[in-house]
Amino acid sequence: MIFINIIYVRLHFEDSCLNPKVILRPMFTAISMAEKEKDLIPLFEPDSIAIVGASSKKGKVGNILLSNIVNSGYDGVVYPINPKGGEIYGKEVYGSIEELPDGIDLGIVVIPAKYVREAVHKLGEKGIKHTIVITSGFSEIGNTDEENLIVEEAGKHGMRILGPNVFGIYSAKAELNATFGPSDVSKGEIALISQSGALGIAMIGKTAMQYLGLSAIVSVGNKADIDDMDLIDYFADDDESKVIMIYMEGLENGREFIDKVESEIPPEKAIIVIKAGRSEKGATAVASHTGSLAGSDRVFSSAFKQAGILRADTINEAFNWSRAFSSTPLPENDKVVVITNGGGIGVLSADAAEKYGVDLLDDQTFLKETFEETIPPFGSTKNPIDITGQAGKEEYEKALRKAFESDEIGAVVGLYCETGTTDDGEVANAVKEIHDDFGNEKTAVYAFTGGEEVNDCIQWLRKNNISAYTETDDAMSSLGALYRRKRYLDRKEEMEDIDAPDMDIESINEIINRAVSQGRVNLLEDEARKILDLAGIPMAEGRVVNTLEDAVKAAEEIGYPVVLKVVSEDIMHKSDAGGLALDLENEKEVVDAYQAIYSNCKSKYPNAHIRGISVAEMLKGGEETIVGGTWDNSFGPMVMFGLGGVYVEILEDVVFRVAPISKREARRMIGEINAFPVLVGARGQSRKDLDALADIIYRMSFLMDEVDDISEIDLNPIKAFDQGKGAKSVDVAISIKRKVI
Amino acid sequence: MIFINIIYVRLHFEDSCLNPKVILRPMFTAISMAEKEKDLIPLFEPDSIAIVGASSKKGKVGNILLSNIVNSGYDGVVYPINPKGGEIYGKEVYGSIEELPDGIDLGIVVIPAKYVREAVHKLGEKGIKHTIVITSGFSEIGNTDEENLIVEEAGKHGMRILGPNVFGIYSAKAELNATFGPSDVSKGEIALISQSGALGIAMIGKTAMQYLGLSAIVSVGNKADIDDMDLIDYFADDDESKVIMIYMEGLENGREFIDKVESEIPPEKAIIVIKAGRSEKGATAVASHTGSLAGSDRVFSSAFKQAGILRADTINEAFNWSRAFSSTPLPENDKVVVITNGGGIGVLSADAAEKYGVDLLDDQTFLKETFEETIPPFGSTKNPIDITGQAGKEEYEKALRKAFESDEIGAVVGLYCETGTTDDGEVANAVKEIHDDFGNEKTAVYAFTGGEEVNDCIQWLRKNNISAYTETDDAMSSLGALYRRKRYLDRKEEMEDIDAPDMDIESINEIINRAVSQGRVNLLEDEARKILDLAGIPMAEGRVVNTLEDAVKAAEEIGYPVVLKVVSEDIMHKSDAGGLALDLENEKEVVDAYQAIYSNCKSKYPNAHIRGISVAEMLKGGEETIVGGTWDNSFGPMVMFGLGGVYVEILEDVVFRVAPISKREARRMIGEINAFPVLVGARGQSRKDLDALADIIYRMSFLMDEVDDISEIDLNPIKAFDQGKGAKSVDVAISIKRKVI
Repeated sequence: MIFINIIYVRLHFEDSCLNPKVILRPMFTAISMAEKEKDLIPLFEPDSIAIVGASSKKGKVGNILLSNIVNSGYDGVVYPINPKGGEIYGKEVYGSIEELPDGIDLGIVVIPAKYVREAVHKLGEKGIKHTIVITSGFSEIGNTDEENLIVEEAGKHGMRILGPNVFGIYSAKAELNATFGPSDVSKGEIALISQSGALGIAMIGKTAMQYLGLSAIVSVGNKADIDDMDLIDYFADDDESKVIMIYMEGLENGREFIDKVESEIPPEKAIIVIKAGRSEKGATAVASHTGSLAGSDRVFSSAFKQAGILRADTINEAFNWSRAFSSTPLPENDKVVVITNGGGIGVLSADAAEKYGVDLLDDQTFLKETFEETIPPFGSTKNPIDITGQAGKEEYEKALRKAFESDEIGAVVGLYCETGTTDDGEVANAVKEIHDDFGNEKTAVYAFTGGEEVNDCIQWLRKNNISAYTETDDAMSSLGALYRRKRYLDRKEEMEDIDAPDMDIESINEIINRAVSQGRVNLLEDEARKILDLAGIPMAEGRVVNTLEDAVKAAEEIGYPVVLKVVSEDIMHKSDAGGLALDLENEKEVVDAYQAIYSNCKSKYPNAHIRGISVAEMLKGGEETIVGGTWDNSFGPMVMFGLGGVYVEILEDVVFRVAPISKREARRMIGEINAFPVLVGARGQSRKDLDALADIIYRMSFLMDEVDDISEIDLNPIKAFDQGKGAKSVDVAISIKRKVI
Repeated sequence: MIFINIIYVRLHFEDSCLNPKVILRPMFTAISMAEKEKDLIPLFEPDSIAIVGASSKKGKVGNILLSNIVNSGYDGVVYPINPKGGEIYGKEVYGSIEELPDGIDLGIVVIPAKYVREAVHKLGEKGIKHTIVITSGFSEIGNTDEENLIVEEAGKHGMRILGPNVFGIYSAKAELNATFGPSDVSKGEIALISQSGALGIAMIGKTAMQYLGLSAIVSVGNKADIDDMDLIDYFADDDESKVIMIYMEGLENGREFIDKVESEIPPEKAIIVIKAGRSEKGATAVASHTGSLAGSDRVFSSAFKQAGILRADTINEAFNWSRAFSSTPLPENDKVVVITNGGGIGVLSADAAEKYGVDLLDDQTFLKETFEETIPPFGSTKNPIDITGQAGKEEYEKALRKAFESDEIGAVVGLYCETGTTDDGEVANAVKEIHDDFGNEKTAVYAFTGGEEVNDCIQWLRKNNISAYTETDDAMSSLGALYRRKRYLDRKEEMEDIDAPDMDIESINEIINRAVSQGRVNLLEDEARKILDLAGIPMAEGRVVNTLEDAVKAAEEIGYPVVLKVVSEDIMHKSDAGGLALDLENEKEVVDAYQAIYSNCKSKYPNAHIRGISVAEMLKGGEETIVGGTWDNSFGPMVMFGLGGVYVEILEDVVFRVAPISKREARRMIGEINAFPVLVGARGQSRKDLDALADIIYRMSFLMDEVDDISEIDLNPIKAFDQGKGAKSVDVAISIKRKVI
């Protein structure tokens, strides 16, 4: 099945500029979906490679690339192509693509941009299904049309394109370094995906220097075809990749990304993302709170957290965490023991433990029983366990052995401080021996503090696949990351399938379609009320009336006291306009208020279209909270919770989730705000009905998820009453997406 | 003048245990104050050294120490002392201290603990005024008496003691490595003081490995005599120390420390402290908010900040900042330009800039004019300025030159990312040449990202005293530290002398003395009211009455509405006891309330001593704030500010200062709380009277500072009214220090 797909997509961020350029470009892609190759194995494990633009001239990309391939130990067949022919690095050069044999797995193109499309065509004719276009000069400099044409050309042959504008790939499995970066790569279990070419190359060198072993490196560049999603598919199945580390600037389809991560990444693997661009100020101004906050970087953090993705702030942090995930298992339990030869680093490690959410075991009786025999006089069995500056190989080995043997201990942090008298290497040996004896069964991280010799020990431990760090803080931060992953997996396991609540989606859509057909983007109060009702979200009783008589009748039906409010999309600040009257206790007050509201609004906003007056139940007491729903450009429907007023607007004390979520998850959200104690009876107040609040959040998340056209819902405030007394929204505002018809 | 001093002091934290042990120990010190040597120059720059316990046996501390001294290039005279005699490392060994000549500057003792006192006596007899006691086994293991006796012995000879339980000192000026740590030390301008011996030794090696140049290292150990304060005195005057870096666990006399730092450390020097023990839970439970929060680690942070001390979280951070302070000047202005060859690291640097409070210059016209000529096609003059992956030596040199030449630019961040094609060394050369051309006049930090060769470039730049880092984040964090120091100095410069407010301290003390004499620790309401009045702090009008008649009379004088409240130190929760009545509008309500309060309290607390009923002005409206005063064990009088209720109790949104402070500083405190927008008209509210609030804080700070016996004052809430309408405290509680008589 062939079809023409005309869509607008957001261009990913250019590597060479700080802020993402959001360019809307038409993408004409004639792709044969059925024939499109899904399998990326030939990209990472090719039996043969054709290099279009291989060069004999040192320093040229086409030369470095070939040199790296030849020197990396790759044992497949390599076909350099260059019209000049001859031989480069012992490989016979082909004069043209046409001369190649059939059945080659991978093409790599390093010729000027204007010749790339023709080369792709010819490689396609030769039946090649995967091509890396290293060449730059396409969409990253505005040359988007040509890039699209290349992908279109590839599509004709069912060929997948990596790039353009990439530095290539490295694959440990194939012993293939097909990059023009450094030739030495340290082999291991971390798959590295970089959206930035320069940074990717720099990271190759950096990982090698730190003995951080890589299973693969891939530069995604302009992502004209193969993107993060495809790569996640591959690495999820790749046995040799235990950690997937991504340097990411933009993410068009965040929803798809996190869905894939959640469903494809097995528990024994970890995914660590450096998402750059935190400081970018949202470009779009959105009217209500939810939107304005959701547009921020917090949405990324929330969504990543929800999918068990660990977000690192710096490259260093990502490296540190990756090391731990690739060389030590997840902890079996929460209790951590620190073994140290120095009190100072012990104190620093305890500080770091608190900072990174690591729990130090503090059962003093157990600690004493376990470690008493192993520590010298003046040592301490308190945790951190101080085996003193006199400790050498024997003392470390004894103490570590005790810790490794105990099932009560979930993880071990081994700290060593150069003393001037101890043999550093012997201590490293003790660590290695323990790891040899126990296999890779106990979670353990180490930090060795000191000079050159200590550094050599760290490197040696790293070469032996032990998580050793130069900083106590780094070791503890990495252990914290392991625990975050463990806690995510525990939560995921216990998570029930999410049951959708009973909601009349069809009727809700009817209301929205009516508004759309009238060209409105904000629903009227009665429409919004009706939708909440259909969604099962409780709200203060109320109705919109158009006569004084109806107002009194409504008030009497609802029961005093009531609130009267003008209904008009032209009057934004209803209170300032005199369009609001609270706490009306009888007929007379309703009559006076009704007339006052009309005359105030008429005189202040003579041209406003007044649709009526809303008469509503006056809710007294309760704690003010806010639940919002918003449509994020990258992650789609989101739900937000916070306390009302200052908490949301000034302190930004809110939490987000990608919708939909279970009621249990909604309950968890409530617990995550800083001001949570307010809801459970802090300061002598009563405990609020958290269940009722969770139900509203849960329903809101499904409303956002199931009704496509809603862009935003703001329930502000929702009064949360005492436990068992429920929660009710006082006000509601619903916006719908602007349609370009 | 000789006198016997019997005082209780808190023992500093032991190196070998996590939590500080607070041991009260009697310290009998007979010291001749007049003769006590103040000058530490002979300690750091001795012409001659006697080593008691020098050893020929490899691996022994007395051997390593002598070896380090001999090999460090020290050109003074060295006298090893060992009863065995002979020669060690070419130095003639003396059989006893008695055999030494007179006039030796420095003694170092490395013999068993039990012989130390006698050695100190003999060294004193020889006229030695400075002795380092390396030997351990004193107060750190409970042997406090002997330690005190050693200090006493030293005092008899006017001798100062460093230690015991230290690893020695290193002094670049004297080319002296008198430690038993690593022999190689990198020479430079950072003075390192460590309270932890093990960590200190480890840091020597670590600094050497990173080419972080040291002017001195000193281990303070048990601080039996010489402490941080003495060392600050020395380093403040030492021309070769530009940065003072301290690893600190405990600080007994925080007040004295920050006063000294503020008055002695000249603007061109920086002081960086790693204060460990953040996670330590305060041991003392204090009744009211101020106390409970002030006991925390936040007090340290506040006090350090106030004195311009930079608090680092980790050793790495302290090293990074120290590097910047020792090799680049403080920025002239706030505007920073980033020059990069990679978009990825550019984005990361912009994120880091925001995180660390660094402002990127964003005048696009200026940037274009300045850099347009120097950047290649597809580069960007936006800041970060992207000179693209093609950039080599020439491009870096051009762009850096433009940035260094411009007075509009306060600081430059140079980033380089390994590209696979650029010569890393050439880029490092470009940086060096620019620094050679411009001298050390422009603030500049660099981060080079990549592998082994890039690392060599970083090390080479460091050797050339250029602030080069391995991480973009580290470079920006260090620049942020420079800016924090600059901003502190700017503030300090503009700071007026603090005028004390007009307060009747004598009368205040009289009130307190009366309470003390009656054995009370909490002042009665009328006493506390009177003190506020004498201090010029406005409070809701009120008085304590004992008859119904007086209550009515008081209410009429004050003016309705009023508040009635029981006055009794035995009834803590007055509201729960029915001891509080609000908003009383006339005589009848006052009469009813008066009687109700009496009967409620009598029936609920039959044994409570009721001192009367307070009749007070009912304050309506206004924003609730809290001002507190507290006495911190380390820093003395502190003042605290926050919004009321949840903000203080749950969100801990409060700020502290060491008292006293100027009104201007009080105003700055107000601006530092997260909820500050609430006070200046956020959410459609009116702006509150910040001046009146600042005046209360300012007066509170002087009240705490000038009245020695107050342990705590709690003004909660203080109603802050609209601008110009003032602020008044609703309630007051004052506690006085418990006296041990």
